Amino acid sequence: MSDILFEKIALIGIGLIGSSLARVIRREGLTNHIAISTRSEQTLEEARQLGLGDSYSIDAKEVVLDADLVIISVPVGSSGAAAEQIAPALKAGAIVTDVGSTKASVIGQMLPFLPKNVHFIPGHPIAGTEKSGPSAGFAELFRGRWCILTPLPGTDQNAVERLGRFWEACGSRLDTMDPNHHDKVLAIVSHLPHIIAYNIVGTADDLETVTESEVIKYSASGFRDFTRLAASDPVMWRDICLHNKDAILEMLARFSEDLSSLQRAIRWGDGDKLFEMFTHTRDVRRSIIEAGQEVDLPDFGRQAANKN
Amino acid sequence: MSDILFEKIALIGIGLIGSSLARVIRREGLTNHIAISTRSEQTLEEARQLGLGDSYSIDAKEVVLDADLVIISVPVGSSGAAAEQIAPALKAGAIVTDVGSTKASVIGQMLPFLPKNVHFIPGHPIAGTEKSGPSAGFAELFRGRWCILTPLPGTDQNAVERLGRFWEACGSRLDTMDPNHHDKVLAIVSHLPHIIAYNIVGTADDLETVTESEVIKYSASGFRDFTRLAASDPVMWRDICLHNKDAILEMLARFSEDLSSLQRAIRWGDGDKLFEMFTHTRDVRRSIIEAGQEVDLPDFGRQAANKN
Repeated sequence: MSDILFEKIALIGIGLIGSSLARVIRREGLTNHIAISTRSEQTLEEARQLGLGDSYSIDAKEVVLDADLVIISVPVGSSGAAAEQIAPALKAGAIVTDVGSTKASVIGQMLPFLPKNVHFIPGHPIAGTEKSGPSAGFAELFRGRWCILTPLPGTDQNAVERLGRFWEACGSRLDTMDPNHHDKVLAIVSHLPHIIAYNIVGTADDLETVTESEVIKYSASGFRDFTRLAASDPVMWRDICLHNKDAILEMLARFSEDLSSLQRAIRWGDGDKLFEMFTHTRDVRRSIIEAGQEVDLPDFGRQAANKN
Repeated sequence: MSDILFEKIALIGIGLIGSSLARVIRREGLTNHIAISTRSEQTLEEARQLGLGDSYSIDAKEVVLDADLVIISVPVGSSGAAAEQIAPALKAGAIVTDVGSTKASVIGQMLPFLPKNVHFIPGHPIAGTEKSGPSAGFAELFRGRWCILTPLPGTDQNAVERLGRFWEACGSRLDTMDPNHHDKVLAIVSHLPHIIAYNIVGTADDLETVTESEVIKYSASGFRDFTRLAASDPVMWRDICLHNKDAILEMLARFSEDLSSLQRAIRWGDGDKLFEMFTHTRDVRRSIIEAGQEVDLPDFGRQAANKN
């Protein structure tokens, strides 16, 4: 059990991230009151059934009343609307943060609505699975993962530190970054991989010469690895593509350029070049495992998981 | 324990697939003698240390003497050389098979060397991990996975059935297919995914704006999924690219066409189109899980595997 960090915490949005936060906040005893709001009656009822909070309301204004920490966990395209809605009810001195996968756009959307007497500190926990909704969350989601804060110039340092302690209490490792740099980093480590995964699954689905049932049967030879990312929440990913357009297009251009060069090596039968390209990528995985960001088991540990 | 299916089995090549075969053959008692050959002294010594066989030789000719089943598990570019080497020593009536990821090329390479009095039945177990070498193998590798046989017209049906029973005893599910169709199917379910994975890991490695250490730290947001395939054996994958060129180039063209269309949707901010593209890919993963070709756990079961 950690200490109470905030008397009351309001969670706006209770999907995978929001509901994982609710669980870890409860487990670690980080607050006396978790107030939950989401736009859908059905999702709110699901959260209530799961016992994720202490109070619930469809009206986000209601749950942020008296809250010392407000966490917006909605698709990035809805950040502005969420900020507009809660703005009049926010407590002076409250910390308002978000968990969105793009930062410049979220800041642009939220900042104009938020009153000057709250601390707005954009954030992004680098954690998730392909599942969505309140029942998909779990308290360990953030353990050992990085959370990036992108505070704006002039933000109260005390507030940034308090929010940092909160994320560390949730199990995260902490980083701060410029919002625009964040958006470039995420474009390559997250947005491009998802777009490529969606694309290859789409390509496989559209072939005339190979049937869908063949793709499914033989997917263990590589294809199935892509289907996890391609099973992610479509609303979330539509919004990311719309709200981190420039960085994503830049990374897509680099990717396509590299792919053309690989394609040429295949066409020309340039075995030396292919061997060289396929060799130096091995080290990257080793580094990721050493950095504690991946399990050190073959096949993502599927075999091990399957034995349970 | 199954019945003895072959009095003596010769394994040419003792990497991930060969050594997994040795282990499952032993566990299931499918033969009285496992003879192992590989081109590298060091690898052969490793196999001996692991106790994978009953006899060992650097000379493939020696191990195929009197063998009733010969399984070639080498990079596809070395299939012809392996066939040429063993041909003079093969026992009349022996079954010769392989496990290569391309079939038309392997047939083209091996067939000219093999004597008429053996049964040559090309095969491909759809199983593997990103690890390579004799110590990477395990007896369960083939369990529930498909093995595709691509027998040539006129092949003795009895021999095909015996080989089929062998793979089933190893835990595989059995399929037969035309070699050219096999190569197209594998180009989309396996070869394209590996090439894309190698490519994206390469792209990330070459950026000026994002450091390698950032890519590694934040890789849990999607990127790390690609690093598994990109950590596969470079010799094996160089050979696959060289030996299934046409089908791979066809799939790459399709993939690039689809990616251009997705890129345009991002550039134009076409949210409806993005949403639609990102929605119908979800079903594919569900089908793969239902077909028993993937674990039914979020994040490939990494979380579950990590708890052990």
